[in-house]
Amino acid sequence: MTVRALWYDRHTLHLIDQRRLPGHLVVRHLRTVQGTAEAIRTMVVRGAPAIGVAAAFGMALASRQRGMTALRAVGILRATRPTAYDLFVGIETVRRAWARGEDAEDAAVAYCARVVAECRKIGEAGAPLFRQANKVLTHCNAGALATVEWGTALAPIRVAHDRGVRLFVWVDETRPLLQGSRLTAWELTQEKIPHAVIADNAAGYYLHNGDVDAVIVGADRIARNGDFANKIGTYEKAVVAHENDVPFYVAAPWSTFDASRPDGTTIPVEERDESEVLEIGDLRIAPKKSRARNPAFDVTPAKYVTGFVTPIGVMRPSQLPGFLLRHGGRPKTPSST
Amino acid sequence: MTVRALWYDRHTLHLIDQRRLPGHLVVRHLRTVQGTAEAIRTMVVRGAPAIGVAAAFGMALASRQRGMTALRAVGILRATRPTAYDLFVGIETVRRAWARGEDAEDAAVAYCARVVAECRKIGEAGAPLFRQANKVLTHCNAGALATVEWGTALAPIRVAHDRGVRLFVWVDETRPLLQGSRLTAWELTQEKIPHAVIADNAAGYYLHNGDVDAVIVGADRIARNGDFANKIGTYEKAVVAHENDVPFYVAAPWSTFDASRPDGTTIPVEERDESEVLEIGDLRIAPKKSRARNPAFDVTPAKYVTGFVTPIGVMRPSQLPGFLLRHGGRPKTPSST
Repeated sequence: MTVRALWYDRHTLHLIDQRRLPGHLVVRHLRTVQGTAEAIRTMVVRGAPAIGVAAAFGMALASRQRGMTALRAVGILRATRPTAYDLFVGIETVRRAWARGEDAEDAAVAYCARVVAECRKIGEAGAPLFRQANKVLTHCNAGALATVEWGTALAPIRVAHDRGVRLFVWVDETRPLLQGSRLTAWELTQEKIPHAVIADNAAGYYLHNGDVDAVIVGADRIARNGDFANKIGTYEKAVVAHENDVPFYVAAPWSTFDASRPDGTTIPVEERDESEVLEIGDLRIAPKKSRARNPAFDVTPAKYVTGFVTPIGVMRPSQLPGFLLRHGGRPKTPSST
Repeated sequence: MTVRALWYDRHTLHLIDQRRLPGHLVVRHLRTVQGTAEAIRTMVVRGAPAIGVAAAFGMALASRQRGMTALRAVGILRATRPTAYDLFVGIETVRRAWARGEDAEDAAVAYCARVVAECRKIGEAGAPLFRQANKVLTHCNAGALATVEWGTALAPIRVAHDRGVRLFVWVDETRPLLQGSRLTAWELTQEKIPHAVIADNAAGYYLHNGDVDAVIVGADRIARNGDFANKIGTYEKAVVAHENDVPFYVAAPWSTFDASRPDGTTIPVEERDESEVLEIGDLRIAPKKSRARNPAFDVTPAKYVTGFVTPIGVMRPSQLPGFLLRHGGRPKTPSST
C-alpha cells in the first residue's frame, strides 16, 4: 500500500502524526481550522506541499464551522509557520473558491489532487536522472509524508525503482527533528529501497569520496531566480556537492514556487524552540545552563542547483524566471510575511 | 577548578567517563593496560591528545603487570582506534623509555606534561586570532577533555577569554556522539564562556549569514602537506567556511602531526558501529529494518585551512612540510596502520 500523509472524508481531516513515526503509526482526526493550525504548528504534519494541502483542508473545515469567517481562518492558518510557500498557496486557493461562493471542501479536494498529480509528474520527470546502481543522497524527508503521496525528492527515486533501476539512497538523519532517519528511512523501508542512514556530518565524507552520484532534495520556497529555502543543512550539502562536481537537484510542485520574490534574500526563516536541539525525546543532551539556536531552514543560492525537477520536466535555474513569467499557472497569492 | 580529562597517581590511571557527561561526573580507575585499551576503544576517553596520554599511561601500567611485555602492551593499545596519530606517539614514547631501561611511569608522566604544556602554548599562540566580540564556531570537542588540560581548539578561546576578549562560541552538537553539546558546552559552561549549541546542519546557515568570524577545530592526524583527519563533519565545515571567506584554523600539539605521511589520502578512517547513528541513549530513532553507516572521521584537504595553531605559533599549510622536516621534535614512530 502506498504511504499517504493525510486524507479527508466525512468532513474530517485525517493526519498521520509524523512526530510518532517510525515507532508508532498514529492517525489524528481533525474537524476544525484551529486543530489543523495546531497540527501544522506542532509538526504533526510537515513538509511544504503537505502543509499546503493540510491548510487547504483547514479552510474547508473552517467553512463548516459556525461563526468562523474566511478572514479569521486565513489568519489562524497563516500564523502557523512562515517559510513554506505552499501553506499560503493552499490557504489562498480555497479562500478564493469560498469567496466565489464555491464549495470550500471541493476546492480543497481539488487542490490536494493537483498536488498529488504534480508529484507523480515530478517522479516521471526526474526518474531519468538516475542510472543503474546510482547512489543518491537526500536530506530531510521529501517523500509521501511531506507531500500527501509520491513525494518530491523521493518521487523520482520511487519511479526509477519501480522501473527496475537499482538505486541506493544515503539518508541524512536530519537533526534536530530527524526527519531523515525517522521518516525517509521509514518510507524507503516500506518500498524495500536499499538505503543507509548517516549522521548529517557524514554527507560530505561520502560526497568527497565519490560515493554519491547525485543529491536530490525538496524545497519549502523557491524564489524567481532559483534561490530556495529548505530544511536546515541543505545549504551545506549543496555547497559540498558543488565543490565535488556532484549534481544537485531540487524537486517541487508549483505551489512551492514564489514568483513574487525575486531572490532568496527575503525568504522568512522560521526559528524553532531551542529544546529541539537540547533534548532528544525525554533525554536532555546539553548542560542545563547551555542555550541553543534552532533555525529550521536555510536558503541555498541558485548557483548551487544543477536542475529543478518540476511537473513539466527538469529545468536549469537560468530557465526559471522566464518560465515562471510565462506560465505562472497558480493563483497569485498575497505576500506571505 | 580547571577541567582535567585524566590523572595518574598511586600506579592508577583516573579517567573521567566522557560517555556520561554532562549528566553524570563519573571517574574510572584503571590499573591495567587491558582496561586502558578498553576505555580508549569504548570512548570513556576520547580526543586525539588525550588518547595519546591515556595510551602512554597504559604502557606505564603494563610495565608493572606481571607477565606483561612491552611488545604485547603495544599490540593491545594499538588495536584500539586507528585514526588519531597521538595514540601511536604516546605508546611509542613510553615503549622507547621502557626499552632503554628507564621508568615507564616517569616517561608517561613526562609525556603527559609535554602535551599539557603544548596545549597551553597553543592557547597563547592562538588567542590573538580572536578580536573583541568575535563569534567562533567549533566542531566536536577539542577542549580539556580531549587533551588532558586546556584543549587544542578551545585553548585559544580560553586564553582570549581570560584576557578579557569577549567571545561567543557556536558549538556544533556533533552527531552521532554529541561531543559538542555534551562536552564542549559543558566545558564552556564551567568557564562561563557565552555559547549556543546548534545542530550540525545549522553551521552553514550561520557561516553564510556572516555570523561566524572564525572556525577553529582540533585534529586527529595531520599529514605533512597539511591534509588532516578530524571528527566527521569537519570537512563540510571547512568547505563551507572557505566558500564564505571565513578563516578556518586547526589547533594541535606535535603528537598529532604525522610527518611520515605525505598527504591525507592514506590516513585510516575508523568506521564505528551503526548503533551510534540508529539509537540515541535507549531510544531507537530509525526503523528496525534500516541500516546505517558511521565513519567517525573525515579528511580535510590542506587547501581549506587558513592556519595551523601549533605550540610555536600559527603557520600556513605551505609552511608545514618544511617546518616538520627541520624540527621533527618528536620520536619517530613506526607506521600506524
